[in-house]
Amino acid sequence: MFDVGLPPLLAVTAAADGPFVLAGVLLSLIVIYLASKIGGELCVRVNLPPVLGELLGGVMVGVSVLHLLAFAGPGIAPESSWLMQLMEQTAGLLPSSMESVFESQSEVISLLSELGVILLLFEIGLESDLAELIRVGPQAAIVASVGVVTPFVLGTAGLIALFHLPLIPAVFAGAALTATSIGITAKVLSELGQLKTREGQIIIGAAVLDDILGIIVLAVVSSLAKTGEIQPVSVVILLVSATAFLVGGVLVGRWLGPAFVSLVDTLKTRGNLLIAGLLVALILSYVGAVIHLEAILGAFVAGLILGETEKKHELEEQVKPIADALVPIFFVCVGAKTDLSVLNPMVEANREGLIIAAFLVVVAIVGKVVTGFTVWGQGNPAADGTSKGLNRLAIGFGMIPRGEVGLVFAGVGSASGILPSSLNAAIIVMVIVTTFVAPPLLRVAFGDGGPGALEGESKTV
Amino acid sequence: MFDVGLPPLLAVTAAADGPFVLAGVLLSLIVIYLASKIGGELCVRVNLPPVLGELLGGVMVGVSVLHLLAFAGPGIAPESSWLMQLMEQTAGLLPSSMESVFESQSEVISLLSELGVILLLFEIGLESDLAELIRVGPQAAIVASVGVVTPFVLGTAGLIALFHLPLIPAVFAGAALTATSIGITAKVLSELGQLKTREGQIIIGAAVLDDILGIIVLAVVSSLAKTGEIQPVSVVILLVSATAFLVGGVLVGRWLGPAFVSLVDTLKTRGNLLIAGLLVALILSYVGAVIHLEAILGAFVAGLILGETEKKHELEEQVKPIADALVPIFFVCVGAKTDLSVLNPMVEANREGLIIAAFLVVVAIVGKVVTGFTVWGQGNPAADGTSKGLNRLAIGFGMIPRGEVGLVFAGVGSASGILPSSLNAAIIVMVIVTTFVAPPLLRVAFGDGGPGALEGESKTV
Repeated sequence: MFDVGLPPLLAVTAAADGPFVLAGVLLSLIVIYLASKIGGELCVRVNLPPVLGELLGGVMVGVSVLHLLAFAGPGIAPESSWLMQLMEQTAGLLPSSMESVFESQSEVISLLSELGVILLLFEIGLESDLAELIRVGPQAAIVASVGVVTPFVLGTAGLIALFHLPLIPAVFAGAALTATSIGITAKVLSELGQLKTREGQIIIGAAVLDDILGIIVLAVVSSLAKTGEIQPVSVVILLVSATAFLVGGVLVGRWLGPAFVSLVDTLKTRGNLLIAGLLVALILSYVGAVIHLEAILGAFVAGLILGETEKKHELEEQVKPIADALVPIFFVCVGAKTDLSVLNPMVEANREGLIIAAFLVVVAIVGKVVTGFTVWGQGNPAADGTSKGLNRLAIGFGMIPRGEVGLVFAGVGSASGILPSSLNAAIIVMVIVTTFVAPPLLRVAFGDGGPGALEGESKTV
Repeated sequence: MFDVGLPPLLAVTAAADGPFVLAGVLLSLIVIYLASKIGGELCVRVNLPPVLGELLGGVMVGVSVLHLLAFAGPGIAPESSWLMQLMEQTAGLLPSSMESVFESQSEVISLLSELGVILLLFEIGLESDLAELIRVGPQAAIVASVGVVTPFVLGTAGLIALFHLPLIPAVFAGAALTATSIGITAKVLSELGQLKTREGQIIIGAAVLDDILGIIVLAVVSSLAKTGEIQPVSVVILLVSATAFLVGGVLVGRWLGPAFVSLVDTLKTRGNLLIAGLLVALILSYVGAVIHLEAILGAFVAGLILGETEKKHELEEQVKPIADALVPIFFVCVGAKTDLSVLNPMVEANREGLIIAAFLVVVAIVGKVVTGFTVWGQGNPAADGTSKGLNRLAIGFGMIPRGEVGLVFAGVGSASGILPSSLNAAIIVMVIVTTFVAPPLLRVAFGDGGPGALEGESKTV
């Protein structure tokens, strides 16, 4: 319902630009799905995990290359989005409405992408095995702790010793090296069919703990950067609430599980199980967000709880199509927001950053790979009853991707003026490289199950 | 990640209120799902269609009663939403951020609700039988035409004769009586298991045509109201584009269907069929919106096209959970936006409107019920091979709900100053009554298949 000589039909509704926002969201989703499918299919054909293709597809349509999928922000004009220009030409979008439509559309797509990663973690939680997670708990805790301490110490010390940076920026950059991106790792494990192996569960458990440690580290260094001192009360509050949330959630879940099943069985309308399951996920996500952790942790705990009930498989089946529809939005958006221009060595200003970046990348990778060699124990029993050792390399590789958490560090650091622009760019490069390098490395570490393994695990039928 | 002594972690991202918007959306979805399930389950237990419960659940949590789910708009303060107050207390939302968070959250929920009705029409299209729709085409065209002309003429003439209104407002109110809300009718038919009967397909076909006629009527009367004259060019453009879209879509679909199937079969990543199907729906929805029709018409055509392919059932199964998750958002939002205060007869100013409303309701119902008696032909053959006549009452009842289209008329009319407030309120009351009265009437007209029929059809398993 757009204006080319026709009356402005909906100009009276609360959001006068409503129809354009809808049209913009529809176009963005078209671009996202095309990018995710083209990227994913190409990657599968060269034996790489599809999620890498979704990330790369996102890069292609995003701010670095085609500018089809752009997000409103400081210094980003709506005209920079080709989608907005397309709507101006095909849908009669007026230049005066462009900015507000662009902002609303960005907001909606960002939110859909956040719902996508929430759904992903809910699904991962559903598929996880709580007993196994508890069994590997000590190993996961070691992996998480070593994986936070090693890159932090190596990074901070190296930046001071080799690049003569002052203490505070060096601490900040070191801290940015700590937190693993659980989304990317979990998705790759799922695609490789390794989510339920002992290695897979150690990685997931460690990534969850690591995420919590990362939030605490960020709180500490931000406060250090802002006030020059650490607020021990905040740190204690975070630690206590995180522990209470994880342990409490699982304990309450044991009691809530049977109640959930009998409630669902009394419901008679369409979508009874699905909506009840989504409600648990949404409520715990909200709680996770409100107690200063993250929504995705809540979704993961919700999945763990419901995965212990007899409805597990039925719920998994119903959540799968929703995850199929929402999760690619997250990965394409991560790719689309990645600005590769900081990687261009032809730009003078990038060079110093690139050298520091090379150092950070090495530390980021080494600091996580070593974690695999700190764990003990056996892998899954083989078919003949024998048990080989844990795949230590796979555990280390699984912890490599930094993803969005690292970008938050860069954002906080550069906004507060602590990070010089070269160091800021170096952190972004480190995030890009670790994110993109981990999926193929994991694929190699788990060995080549032939293309059939990857397709079989990843295809919905 | 909220501020209670902790650093404002994400304060640097493009949308500084991002985490709060996410929290607000999560809370809104919790409220929406609770309202839809509680309402739906209560209605099923008293043998009413669940969708009526979703609408009533929406009314309960919306602007009329609990103010949990409110939408930003002129004169609506963020403080009027109890959810925003809850976030202020539990999540540390600052009053200064309230307005922008409220607006973003409203935008996202509205968009999700629009995606919900798009998914609903896609699903209805998938479930429809194109051959049957074409067979009932002439009957559907009669029903649609009679159902647009009768209430328009009766309404306009009655308002002039009985209430001595001037011509233009009377024409406007008469026009508001024309367009059936396809969403509500289709959902009820689906819940009653009557979507695939001959009556069901006549109603769906007529509602689609009626929607197009409604858009044309709105364009005509808006232009009449605005400029005092009719722009024949716009009308011709709309008619031609609507015909071309429907007929062309189906014809192109015949050729595109096999190509779609073979493309999907070559894809190897997860969600291959689902994402490809959603892409067709999204693209046609965008085209539908851009050529001044509606996104939902495009989604319906997409469903019709893909429903003709061999992937029909597989796709239906995968779309179902997504529809289960998104469609309730639409119905709860329709309920939540319905302001029942115009119905309060204790308010002096409402009385004149209520008397006009009573007249409009009668015309709205009679004007559509007569359509059933203009069709000819037989109903579906019974099990013993005999065939009884069409259920004419059901067809008439199916066309009654006016829903959102009527509200658009009221909005356009009151914004352009044509409609006196009493007449505006009367139109809103007419929309409310026809929307809420149609589901139980349809249930009665189709006869009581026992509670099992309703539950069996409506429960996902």
